[in-house]
Amino acid sequence: MFKFKSGSLQTMTDNAAADRLFSRVALRRITNSHRQRGLKNMKQENRVLVLTKDEIKSVLTIEDTIEVVEEGFKALNSGRAIVPFPVALQVPDHNGDIHIKPGYIKGYDTYTVKIASGFYDNPKLNLPASHGMLLLFDSETGFPLCFEVDRCYLTDLRTAAAGAVAARALSKKSVSQIAVIGTGTQARLQIEALSKVRKFDELRVWEPVQATRAERVKQYVADMKKILNAKIVAARTAEEAVVGSEIVVTATMASSPLVKAAWIGKGTHITAMGSDSPEKQELETAVLAKADKIVVDSLKQCAGLGEVHHALADGTIEEKDVYAELGEVLLGKKKGRESDDEITICDLTGTAVQDVVTSQLVYERALRKKIGTYVSV
Amino acid sequence: MFKFKSGSLQTMTDNAAADRLFSRVALRRITNSHRQRGLKNMKQENRVLVLTKDEIKSVLTIEDTIEVVEEGFKALNSGRAIVPFPVALQVPDHNGDIHIKPGYIKGYDTYTVKIASGFYDNPKLNLPASHGMLLLFDSETGFPLCFEVDRCYLTDLRTAAAGAVAARALSKKSVSQIAVIGTGTQARLQIEALSKVRKFDELRVWEPVQATRAERVKQYVADMKKILNAKIVAARTAEEAVVGSEIVVTATMASSPLVKAAWIGKGTHITAMGSDSPEKQELETAVLAKADKIVVDSLKQCAGLGEVHHALADGTIEEKDVYAELGEVLLGKKKGRESDDEITICDLTGTAVQDVVTSQLVYERALRKKIGTYVSV
Repeated sequence: MFKFKSGSLQTMTDNAAADRLFSRVALRRITNSHRQRGLKNMKQENRVLVLTKDEIKSVLTIEDTIEVVEEGFKALNSGRAIVPFPVALQVPDHNGDIHIKPGYIKGYDTYTVKIASGFYDNPKLNLPASHGMLLLFDSETGFPLCFEVDRCYLTDLRTAAAGAVAARALSKKSVSQIAVIGTGTQARLQIEALSKVRKFDELRVWEPVQATRAERVKQYVADMKKILNAKIVAARTAEEAVVGSEIVVTATMASSPLVKAAWIGKGTHITAMGSDSPEKQELETAVLAKADKIVVDSLKQCAGLGEVHHALADGTIEEKDVYAELGEVLLGKKKGRESDDEITICDLTGTAVQDVVTSQLVYERALRKKIGTYVSV
Repeated sequence: MFKFKSGSLQTMTDNAAADRLFSRVALRRITNSHRQRGLKNMKQENRVLVLTKDEIKSVLTIEDTIEVVEEGFKALNSGRAIVPFPVALQVPDHNGDIHIKPGYIKGYDTYTVKIASGFYDNPKLNLPASHGMLLLFDSETGFPLCFEVDRCYLTDLRTAAAGAVAARALSKKSVSQIAVIGTGTQARLQIEALSKVRKFDELRVWEPVQATRAERVKQYVADMKKILNAKIVAARTAEEAVVGSEIVVTATMASSPLVKAAWIGKGTHITAMGSDSPEKQELETAVLAKADKIVVDSLKQCAGLGEVHHALADGTIEEKDVYAELGEVLLGKKKGRESDDEITICDLTGTAVQDVVTSQLVYERALRKKIGTYVSV
């Protein structure tokens, strides 16, 4: 058996190559190829479009994601979204867990099932801990349409987009200095998304994990310089990052508070997105007491998971002190920022509606751009 | 552009065909083909095997399924199975619902997520109401391995296999006459599966839906004659089917009882598999009162869904009257049939563990037989 290098056949013209092409192996290959190519003309019910992470990246911008995620939050607060409580599966003998989140917005062409896993021993095998995919089905028939094997990229993007949606609704329109706590994927994507909705002159960054702080902050500054048109400052302390910043984004895995109420000045908006489990916490609960408006993506979730959860637990606030869900503000049911003095907080825990809108947009774009591989099913 | 008939290239030898093969179109096809074929050498993390219903059918026999389903039930009652409560998604504007069932058996190479839908207006579009697939993931890493787009075939097969497993554990070893109530897919598969574990001379069939009874029974008899070595009798009444039958299988959508206690003789085994929602019912509750041993696939489910549910609800039995879960009998923790006089009932509602074992077997077989299409992910 012979092997080709990828793509080499496109330019092969000599006779030996022609002979090889006409071998039994090549015939089998052509038959298989025919099967794939022919699928574009095949009835929708008999084929599925498979998209890889790179293909997904090639059809979606962060700006698009911000717009559809805003639509998603509006759907959540207008009775159109159906987002059942997710199911979790444990794989205890391999330190893994899987979360399965289905969602649908009435009137949409598709519904989505997201399957995301965390296998925490994967790094020992040189594999990422997280994996994931979004499966899209025809909302009229239940037939599968598209498997978006995004490896969690869309989750990262829609999470960052939610931060931008929150900042656009709640932060001052004109800001100069902003801060990010954290240097990971979300610390990058949140600020990139934010830069699409708010101009700023200076970004201050601080990393809570001391062991790797210097190296991670240096890399963060170097990487973000390429995409931001702003001064980027490595803060020596969290306080130095936060004091004077008009937008503060927390994007860490912290399980004890990093941001103190005393550092928060009038007019500040805080997006807290790191806390997505009951143990995690990024803000002193006094920060929530100091806020004029506490907004959440989902009150039900934030009461159990987010920063709000901790402030409720220690009695700093009561559930009635939560001003609104983000979708209510976006729909105009509740006012957003009303003065340049208000302190606002948006506590984000992530909802399936963000997956629904983002995955549908990817599918539409891939169809229009004819990207992806059809497979017979 | 020219088109081949599927498979015709395998035998094509004339020169014109060779010329066509070497056209630009063919080259593109080969390149694409290479991409697919090359995936077999690609790292497991970057490819997924996709199997169609026909491919799945080609690797699995009903006999195999019976054996692995028995293993599944044993796992369920030995603390090895992890089967979270499924999540359901409604699509109310298109009369659809989706059920998502994840499952894992400790020590297995894979875990499974089953997604099955019912869109009840599909028949108006000339499409089947049901669709479904089983997704397999590496239990060590969470990476996807195989998408089995079975269109509910494996669900049908594993459901039928459970009936055979129950009959093998609970019915008399030697029987002559058996009965089936119903003429649908399960009425066929249940009897086919049963024929692999019990020999019988005569099958009596009755269909509860009067409007289509004559036609459906006629078709059932004609179809089953091809696969059974037994006399097949179209019974004029349910009573005529059941009286004298030593195994009775109910496989209908009935929501009021079809089988009466008075018709059940000593030594009879009944497998009731039609009742998988709280409204459905196939047996008079007095049948359960008459039974010596009531066995269930899952007590928790049967208390809410199956025949047991109705008998509990009207006070005919109490939960302590349920003798065992099927896995307990298979493991030898509880005895099966102890005499030729006992009346036994097995109430089946379906568990994710059946999906786990069946889908893993399909994957192993497909790998060994090199069946399916790899797709890059």
